[in-house]
Amino acid sequence: MEKEITSVNNELVKQVVKLHQKKYRDEEKKFLLEGFKVIEEAFKSGIEIEKVFVSKENAKYNFLQDKLILTTEAVLKKISTTETPPEAVAVAKQKKFTLADINQAKKVILLENIKDLGNLGTILRTAKAFSQDAIILFGETVDLYNPKCVRSSVGNLWKIPVVQIKDFKTLETEFAHFERVATLPKSNHTVNLKDFQAKLPYLIMFGSEAEGLSPQLTDFSTQKVTIEMNSEVESLNLSVSVGIILNAVNRK
Amino acid sequence: MEKEITSVNNELVKQVVKLHQKKYRDEEKKFLLEGFKVIEEAFKSGIEIEKVFVSKENAKYNFLQDKLILTTEAVLKKISTTETPPEAVAVAKQKKFTLADINQAKKVILLENIKDLGNLGTILRTAKAFSQDAIILFGETVDLYNPKCVRSSVGNLWKIPVVQIKDFKTLETEFAHFERVATLPKSNHTVNLKDFQAKLPYLIMFGSEAEGLSPQLTDFSTQKVTIEMNSEVESLNLSVSVGIILNAVNRK
Repeated sequence: MEKEITSVNNELVKQVVKLHQKKYRDEEKKFLLEGFKVIEEAFKSGIEIEKVFVSKENAKYNFLQDKLILTTEAVLKKISTTETPPEAVAVAKQKKFTLADINQAKKVILLENIKDLGNLGTILRTAKAFSQDAIILFGETVDLYNPKCVRSSVGNLWKIPVVQIKDFKTLETEFAHFERVATLPKSNHTVNLKDFQAKLPYLIMFGSEAEGLSPQLTDFSTQKVTIEMNSEVESLNLSVSVGIILNAVNRK
Repeated sequence: MEKEITSVNNELVKQVVKLHQKKYRDEEKKFLLEGFKVIEEAFKSGIEIEKVFVSKENAKYNFLQDKLILTTEAVLKKISTTETPPEAVAVAKQKKFTLADINQAKKVILLENIKDLGNLGTILRTAKAFSQDAIILFGETVDLYNPKCVRSSVGNLWKIPVVQIKDFKTLETEFAHFERVATLPKSNHTVNLKDFQAKLPYLIMFGSEAEGLSPQLTDFSTQKVTIEMNSEVESLNLSVSVGIILNAVNRK
């Protein structure tokens, strides 16, 4: 039999709402999945799902039956983070990757000090679309399990391993034998993307939109690549740049 | 002498806040610019600026002196649409383009039923970066002057003409002699982007992420192009797709 919760003041509802905050996600090592499709994709990819809140009208939901909690629109609105509440919200366990998980990776993307969660989710989706092996988040870390990032990855958050590296020493050691590509604005030191050939294994490094790639990572690179464009435009959106570079590298 | 407004209940402040709504933007044919940099870029591109609200601490602002209104943080917070209020908010006149303005255009991008304002702004920026001549918004129209779109275009909203076309007949007539490229998911009828050559003048057509390109526009196309990618991923983010295709077309 499914459980039923109709009050927005229910203790369990309050616990779920806490997962809107990074602090509680970190403590509990859990996160939220919003919408049937995302829940299904996560489940199929082996993400452990603890509870699925679903409105009675949608209770025909035909898997994860033992995890279902029938509930109201009001509760769904309270526990979700979108303006229009989804048909279902699930609580799931975070999956954390370490360097050991990616020691076979040959196509690796590095994002330095990335702060825009929408961009991060879109980049995960793009990286998976171009069959990259892993993503490194270097420097200041954002929370991958923020609902906005989960949403913009459109079900690709758990399909590609993401590893956080905070110190340069570790990065230097781990990627010593990689081709290390810095993506930069056009200068005398950069090669145009169309003339660039990527050798495996590679680490392609992107800075944040606001700051660009740091001097430290620029110095660490073995190749410097730029996307040729109109000089009236200062830069491209970061996830657009990642898409363009991965498509170009992929087609050769 | 500059004017000064310190009350959030001031009549002028109330009028500016109304511009957060599409209805009033349409009526007044005005919109908001948020932040010094965007105001400056708009001004340099010939956008007519009516008023610039700026806090006293930032009153060193060295142009548009006769339009300045010195104000408080509280007023800036009220009239802006971002969580953290910018140093300055300006009221500017909308610039509308018609088909007559783009009759020399040879590189044209069409977006069908686009609803995501962040995507639209990012696409304007990307299209300008790859020196496209014009953008057509076809079908259901969103408001280009929505603050979110203004923001995500990062100063490129007024650098490329955007024309709205609502009926297919007009589109058919205007672009009869163009190469018309449909961007589609992979199928038997599509050619891979890497094997595609764009002939001028061209109209490259993109559907929305949710619905894709309509059968009507697909039938209207003379070429069908796809971005090759991992079959585990359903689709790319729309602005990422636009970036990849424009970069590929541009490099040939």
